[in-house]
This record gives sequence, structure tokens and C-alpha cells, in this order.
Amino acid sequence: MGWMEGFPPPADRIITQPDSNYFSFPKLRWSVCHMRELLPTEEVSRGLGAPAPLRYLPDPERERASIDALRFTPLGGGAPMTWAESLEANYTDGILILHDGQVVYERYFGCLAEDGKHAAMSMTKSLTGLLAEILVAEGSLDDTALVSSIVPEIRGSAFADATVRQVMDMTTGLHYSEDYADPNADIWVYSAAASPLPKPENYTGPVGYFEYLQQVRPEGRHGEAFHYKTVNADMLGWIVSRVTGKAVTELASERLWRPMGAEQDAYIQVDGKGVPFAGGGLSAGLRDLGRLGQLLLDEGVIDGRRLFPAEVTRSIRRGGDPAKFGDAYPALRGGSYTSMWWVYPGDHGVFAARGVHGQTIYVDPAARMVIVRFASFPKPQNPLIDPTTLPAFEAVANHLMAK
Amino acid sequence: MGWMEGFPPPADRIITQPDSNYFSFPKLRWSVCHMRELLPTEEVSRGLGAPAPLRYLPDPERERASIDALRFTPLGGGAPMTWAESLEANYTDGILILHDGQVVYERYFGCLAEDGKHAAMSMTKSLTGLLAEILVAEGSLDDTALVSSIVPEIRGSAFADATVRQVMDMTTGLHYSEDYADPNADIWVYSAAASPLPKPENYTGPVGYFEYLQQVRPEGRHGEAFHYKTVNADMLGWIVSRVTGKAVTELASERLWRPMGAEQDAYIQVDGKGVPFAGGGLSAGLRDLGRLGQLLLDEGVIDGRRLFPAEVTRSIRRGGDPAKFGDAYPALRGGSYTSMWWVYPGDHGVFAARGVHGQTIYVDPAARMVIVRFASFPKPQNPLIDPTTLPAFEAVANHLMAK
Repeated sequence: MGWMEGFPPPADRIITQPDSNYFSFPKLRWSVCHMRELLPTEEVSRGLGAPAPLRYLPDPERERASIDALRFTPLGGGAPMTWAESLEANYTDGILILHDGQVVYERYFGCLAEDGKHAAMSMTKSLTGLLAEILVAEGSLDDTALVSSIVPEIRGSAFADATVRQVMDMTTGLHYSEDYADPNADIWVYSAAASPLPKPENYTGPVGYFEYLQQVRPEGRHGEAFHYKTVNADMLGWIVSRVTGKAVTELASERLWRPMGAEQDAYIQVDGKGVPFAGGGLSAGLRDLGRLGQLLLDEGVIDGRRLFPAEVTRSIRRGGDPAKFGDAYPALRGGSYTSMWWVYPGDHGVFAARGVHGQTIYVDPAARMVIVRFASFPKPQNPLIDPTTLPAFEAVANHLMAK
Repeated sequence: MGWMEGFPPPADRIITQPDSNYFSFPKLRWSVCHMRELLPTEEVSRGLGAPAPLRYLPDPERERASIDALRFTPLGGGAPMTWAESLEANYTDGILILHDGQVVYERYFGCLAEDGKHAAMSMTKSLTGLLAEILVAEGSLDDTALVSSIVPEIRGSAFADATVRQVMDMTTGLHYSEDYADPNADIWVYSAAASPLPKPENYTGPVGYFEYLQQVRPEGRHGEAFHYKTVNADMLGWIVSRVTGKAVTELASERLWRPMGAEQDAYIQVDGKGVPFAGGGLSAGLRDLGRLGQLLLDEGVIDGRRLFPAEVTRSIRRGGDPAKFGDAYPALRGGSYTSMWWVYPGDHGVFAARGVHGQTIYVDPAARMVIVRFASFPKPQNPLIDPTTLPAFEAVANHLMAK
């Protein structure tokens, strides 16, 4: 679409952070690959060594054709569709399929190339949750502890008497509305607090993620039901940083990006105080999230080295309480949300990270399959994307299991 | 000094872009390693391959002790000083010495570590100049052409009738005052144009580097004398981008960072329209600038591969006209400035990139030596740093030549 092409780009093709709605469609399709050009960011370093090579199929073209031709029926009916057609329907920017640890399918579209990075959005939560789960499994974070016992500054907020586990599973009772259509929704106060731009002169609200978290009010009781609220991930980021003395970026680098042999640095956008956005600020390379998914599938082992206890994957796979999960996500009914991962219903033991424009790290243990998808679906609504995604992923799993 | 430590850092130890003077001492000592956390930036990708390893001395400790003990007398007199003492005197953050292509000395201080990046400031100009010199040597940029013949939008500004070479050598006649102490100096109009932050409501000035360049007025005649003015580098960045259709970041990646086997991505801060700051916005790893210096010393060849014509180095080494260089830089009297590189007086054929807080890539062909230094000297004045730098570098060169 010609966004940001030319020196300078034409006036109606410039996307900038201060002046325009850079994260709505169609600008979104450019912005998802260029977050660092719009915002201050902090690096998730891969270190300085050689990347750990991914293994590839010897005959990738043949397998690619087989997968492209797979047919499935979208959830809720509708005309059958091929895998190849589903990529366009979902505004896919990049897709990678690993089977038995080997890349069997990899394609790039839109703004993304193999050496690019893409906004992960809410998949960031799953990274934060994974880091927390590692600390829990290693015994340095007690998930039964009250949040206020770890972060005393939170004493006056609704988080004070939640347990770490309730935060990790988003079963906290918080007054926090994420209805983007409501101009008075909490999300806007949160956004104003989080923005790295200078505050307006008459601004009296919280500054930065941490100050926002300190003033979240309660709504309902902790532990009763799953409510998807981004602020839990930011709270978890603060917990993890307080316990380790390290920013989420630094911890992700030390525990994951460096030892797993990532091929690109990742990065996370920061607020005006340099705090990384643990609830949604990650941008990363497609293959590196493939390495991450494979590492989870392999219960923490890569190339014979153990990066974290097997209990981390097992805890995520056990899932949360489906009764608390409720009916808000029809396509996932019977599933759950735990440690900031979505645990899917069905007998494959699937768990996944999910971003709001169709991004996913989808781990299918039964099929020994990992799918990573970056996408920039125009509307921030996975319920619109799941119908042409979940059966497509199942079709690939069945295809690979039959081999 | 505890800048930005803790979750959150104490209020008097927070450094943010919108609210504080983040680039003055002592905050400077943190900010030079963290520019991307304060500003939007564009990546200079190293690509996805394994870094090209640097060769190291088998017995580094012994050579390090020898170099640390070297004594020299600062320019202008003063007590003799050891090399080791000079590092502290110059607020060195990182220093690397290559001899015959082999690392013989490497140390990190302050905010920098081997896997960190540091603000290069005006060394960015030398990167832009190198890219331009490569295009000239390859025949895709005519350095005798008028700027307006390449960038017609510049027709109304002082740059219009300058030649590309005059821009590359900063012998343009431009009204542009970089006196930071004068509140009406052009540098402040330029800074306001360049800032990626939203403009104040009543703002009527130029927006972005390119608009600024379009309204630079003439002062004196082109070609008569060297005047160090940053805007020349931004103009050269525009020229280079117009000729290649690529941003300076992308070109630096394609022509240098990828093929030379850089071990880290670099990055350049961008204005509100996504244009990289070709006059000062680079941050990079110490060793990667060592690779760059070595590549120049070796006239474009690395590991047997030629990345650019030998004429590039030769053109820089021939220098500009010392008569035009004048007396503004006493320590460099008899030298010159060409292709955005400083050509030093003396019989070693030294040429260098220089940043305003003591950063340098110092290439000494006679000694087959490259020194890269990152520093955060409190005052932005190389004349205060040269006295304890130039004789120190010469002492190391003589030491290495005697081996």
C-alpha cells in the first residue's frame, strides 16, 4: 500500500506515532513490523553467539504443496477452504510450522520477511507467564503468596490480596474495562499512563504501568472466574522483576533468547519510565517464536540442554479450571487460561499464546507440532479469526500425524 | 550512579525522554547506552547468520598490561599519564584496539558491556559519508553533481547549488549555528524539527530533517572553507537515500553490517517521519565498529571478500584541502575533513570518525592499527579530550609498531 515508501514518503502515506492512529487498519499492516520506529523500546538480546540452526525438511516444496492444498470447513459452517486460502483470509504476515522439531512450512507476506520482527501483542503475556512459571518451578517465586507480600507498593490496590497464581491465571477480581468502544473505559486511563509521550499539562492520572497498577480497584472476588484483563500481565511483570531484580526484557534474554540460540534480538516497548510492557509490547522474529514453541513442546530441553524444568510445560498443560473459564470464548469452550497461556479443549493437549490481530504460538503435543503465525487482521477480535484458524490448524495436525 | 535501577527506580534516578535533560552529564553516562529506550529507532540489521569471529591475541593479559603501562605527555603539557589513567580521564565506556587485524586490547566501563550498544553521535556522519563514498567509487553517485539535480525538493535552500562533494567535505556555505549556548541558534530550530515528539500546537516550523534542510539559508560561498555543520550529513543521507531508494539504515545493513559479519544489529534514531538521523543517530556495538575500522584499513576486503572498491579508503586517505580546513581544531591543524572523516596530520596517514563525547574510530594505516573508543565525556567538546587522547593513541601505535 506504499506506507512509508520514498524519501520522504508522500504526506498521505506517512505513519507517525504522535500524530496518527498508527495501529488501526490499514496502517496497522505496516506498523506491526515497525513498532520500534514509532516507540521507545528495550532490547531482548540474543547475545553474541551464532544462532542455533533450525532443521528443515530436505524437500520443502512438496510438503508445502501438500499443506497448501489441505481443505477444512470453517467453524460455524461456511464454504470449505484450503489452507492456502486461509492465510489470506486471516491477513497472515508470517507462518511457520514445525513437526518433530523440523520446519515443514514457512511463508512470509505483507510487511514481514525472514529477518523482520512483528508485534506479538498479547503473546507478550505468555512470555511473561512463562518466565513466572519458570521461577515458580525453580522455587524462587511462590505462586500461593499474596501479591502485596512481594510488591508492597501495591497495598492500596485490588491486587493486594490476590495470589500470584490468580494473577497468572487471570482469575483476579479487578475493575478494569477493556471495551475500546467506550471512551470512559479503564483502558484509556491505562493507555494514558503507559504512553511514553509527554503528559498533557493538566494531566493528573497515573504515570507508567506501575502507578496504574497501584490504583486498580476491586470488582468481584479473586479466584472465582477467569476475566481476561491485560493489567494482570503487567502486574506479573512487576512481580517477576521484583523477585529477580531484572526487567522482563533482561530475564527473557537470559533465560530464553540467549540459551535457545535465537537468531534475532527481540524487543519490548517501554513506558515513560523505561518499564517494558509485559502485557503486550513484544516484537520478535517468526522463527525465534518457533524456537520458543518447540522449547515448550520439548519441556524445556533444546539440543540436549535443559533450559527450565519440565514441570513448566506440564503445569501449563494441566491448565486452569475450565469451570472458571466460562463461555466468553465459544471456540475455546471447555478450555482454560493458565500462566498466561490458552489451554485448548480437545484431546491433543494444545496450548497457545494468542495476540489480538491473529498472532499465535500454537503447540500441539499430540501431533508434535508447533505453528507460529503473525497476522494483522483488521479487527482486534480473535473470535473472527478462530473460525478459519482452529480447523485449519487441526487439519495440518492430522495431516502431519498421518505421515 | 544507580540510574534506572529498581522496579521502579527511585524518582530522582529515573531518566525519561519527554521530561528531563537526558543527554546532559551525569544522566548522559546512562543514556549513551540506552538511546532506543528513549527514542524511536530503526534497525541496522546484521542479518541472520553467524557473526564473523574476531581474531584475538593468544596471551591478551600480557599485552594489556604492556599497553596499560604506556606513558605519554598530554598535548599542551601537563603531567605524564599512563594509558590506563587516560581511560578514566576521558570517561571511556569501551575501548578496542586491533593490530594487524587482531584484537590486542579490549575493555568495558560505565554503562557498556560487550553485548551493549553505545551512541556514536557524530561518528554517524562518517558512516553516512562512507556509504556515499562507496556509491561514488562504484559510479552510482556523481560527487561533482549539484545537490538540486539529485534532490529537486532542495531547490529553494542553500544546498541547491552546492556539489555533492562540497556536502561530503562540509565546505558548503550555510547559515547554521550550532552554538548550544545561544538560545536562538539554528540548532534549536533543527532539534525541534527533528524531534519525534508531537509538535506544540502553535508550532509552525519545519517538520523532520528533510523539511529543515529545505529552508537552510546560504552564508558565504560553497567550496571555500570547511565549516563543521551537522546538516551536511543529513543532506548527504537524503542524497544517498534518493540515489539508492534505501534508508541509510537499510543501506548500512546491506553494504556493511551484513557482509562484514557484525555480531550485533545497530540502530539509528528517527525523526517523526521515520527518517534516520544520518548526522548523529547511530548506536552500535564496540566490536562492530572495530570490524568497520578494520574493513576501511583493509581497503574494503574482509576474509578475502571485497565489500567495496579500494578507492573508497584511498579517497578518504587523500583527504580534503588542508588550507580550507583552517585553524578551528588546533590538535588537528594540517589535517582535513573529507567524506565525513577526519584526516589527521602526521606521517601515519591516520583518519578517524569522531563523536562529540569522545567517541572515535581511529585508523592508523602506518601502524596497521584500529582503535575504537566509546566515551561519555561530560562536556561535548573534543578539544578537551584530544590532549589526553591523541598522544595516547600515538604511544600505542609506536608500541605496536616496535613489536
